[in-house]
Amino acid sequence: MAATLQELTQLVLKFRDERNWAQFHNPKDVALSLTLEAAELLELTQWKSGEELKAHLAANREALGDELSDILGWVLVMASDQGIDLEAAFRRKLEKNAQKYPVEKARGQAKKYTEL
Amino acid sequence: MAATLQELTQLVLKFRDERNWAQFHNPKDVALSLTLEAAELLELTQWKSGEELKAHLAANREALGDELSDILGWVLVMASDQGIDLEAAFRRKLEKNAQKYPVEKARGQAKKYTEL
Amino acid sequence: MAATLQELTQLVLKFRDERNWAQFHNPKDVALSLTLEAAELLELTQWKSGEELKAHLAANREALGDELSDILGWVLVMASDQGIDLEAAFRRKLEKNAQKYPVEKARGQAKKYTEL
Amino acid sequence: MAATLQELTQLVLKFRDERNWAQFHNPKDVALSLTLEAAELLELTQWKSGEELKAHLAANREALGDELSDILGWVLVMASDQGIDLEAAFRRKLEKNAQKYPVEKARGQAKKYTEL
Repeated sequence: MAATLQELTQLVLKFRDERNWAQFHNPKDVALSLTLEAAELLELTQWKSGEELKAHLAANREALGDELSDILGWVLVMASDQGIDLEAAFRRKLEKNAQKYPVEKARGQAKKYTEL
Repeated sequence: MAATLQELTQLVLKFRDERNWAQFHNPKDVALSLTLEAAELLELTQWKSGEELKAHLAANREALGDELSDILGWVLVMASDQGIDLEAAFRRKLEKNAQKYPVEKARGQAKKYTEL
Repeated sequence: MAATLQELTQLVLKFRDERNWAQFHNPKDVALSLTLEAAELLELTQWKSGEELKAHLAANREALGDELSDILGWVLVMASDQGIDLEAAFRRKLEKNAQKYPVEKARGQAKKYTEL
Repeated sequence: MAATLQELTQLVLKFRDERNWAQFHNPKDVALSLTLEAAELLELTQWKSGEELKAHLAANREALGDELSDILGWVLVMASDQGIDLEAAFRRKLEKNAQKYPVEKARGQAKKYTEL
């Protein structure tokens, strides 16, 4: 298994088209749905930290994979619907981040670029 | 450009390692950061709908690609840190969704599977 | 019924103290929990708009009141734990907003203050 | 200062009406806006924990009060727009929570009621 983003996008669009769901996927509800899935991921970390959280996530690896997959699915749908080449956008954003966070300044610092 | 999830993961981990940032990436803060990026995406749709939203997103395609990329980045980081094969998880989750939303029942319905 | 914020805060703190839960309420998990409740509210609006959404919310008024109450509860807990006089903060923030959005400029405009 | 929820609601509705903004406040965008403010609160806790977080919040008490106030404002607006008596809803929800989390079972436990 070594699919590209485009191939994974095809899978999720096929799923959608078989159900005739594109009609519901306006960008606001798609962004909203992605946010709800992010919250479900976040919920897996609620009230736990450190070793306890680590053990909890290890014990819930399938649920974790499910949430990450749901988020990824919405990212792919949104990019496709909005005509965005996600891989190109991803590479460009990493370049931007590299400029905002130059290695020599950012190394070992958990600070916003505005504070570096 | 036709990178696999694994190749994109390598890019974001390289970015992180150059800055020695793995030390900050506990799963709670990673999930929290992903949620914040989802909120930034959501913000692009605030107070607008229909054609106005469509035009707004078209005029802000780079910002949209940036937010989707930030979300994707955190998904890849979280999956990698937690030892999850994201592509396998994604395919498995689509299978689960296909069972929760069988074509014959779900076609053209914007309902939760519990209501079908 | 006409309780002040302080009286409502007493109710939720009493609930917490009876269960000895203050020990779990570090600010990160409280903010995280508030975000999860906001997501539950948001979910009530998913895939629906206009009249359909209006009818849906009217039919789910108790659920809506529950979610708003959960959010309010966390706001009160966070303010109390952080030594914030919430009513004073609320009045001060309205003043700030009034300066950011002067009536003559903001009237009838759904724009951010940076765009006015 | 000892305003009731109703009095605070009057303040925020007056602010809105002076700007003629009720027209933009459909429930989906209100819930979305509340979520964005929750994310801004959450951001204040990003990458920090324990004593470091405590010191950070103490140093940013005004920002914290601002975010809590923005969230409270949207809670009041949503309740008012949807015809919900927020204080009654809040008291009822505490009752519900008291039944879901009976003192004898929940005391000192950071568990969901489904796990008690």
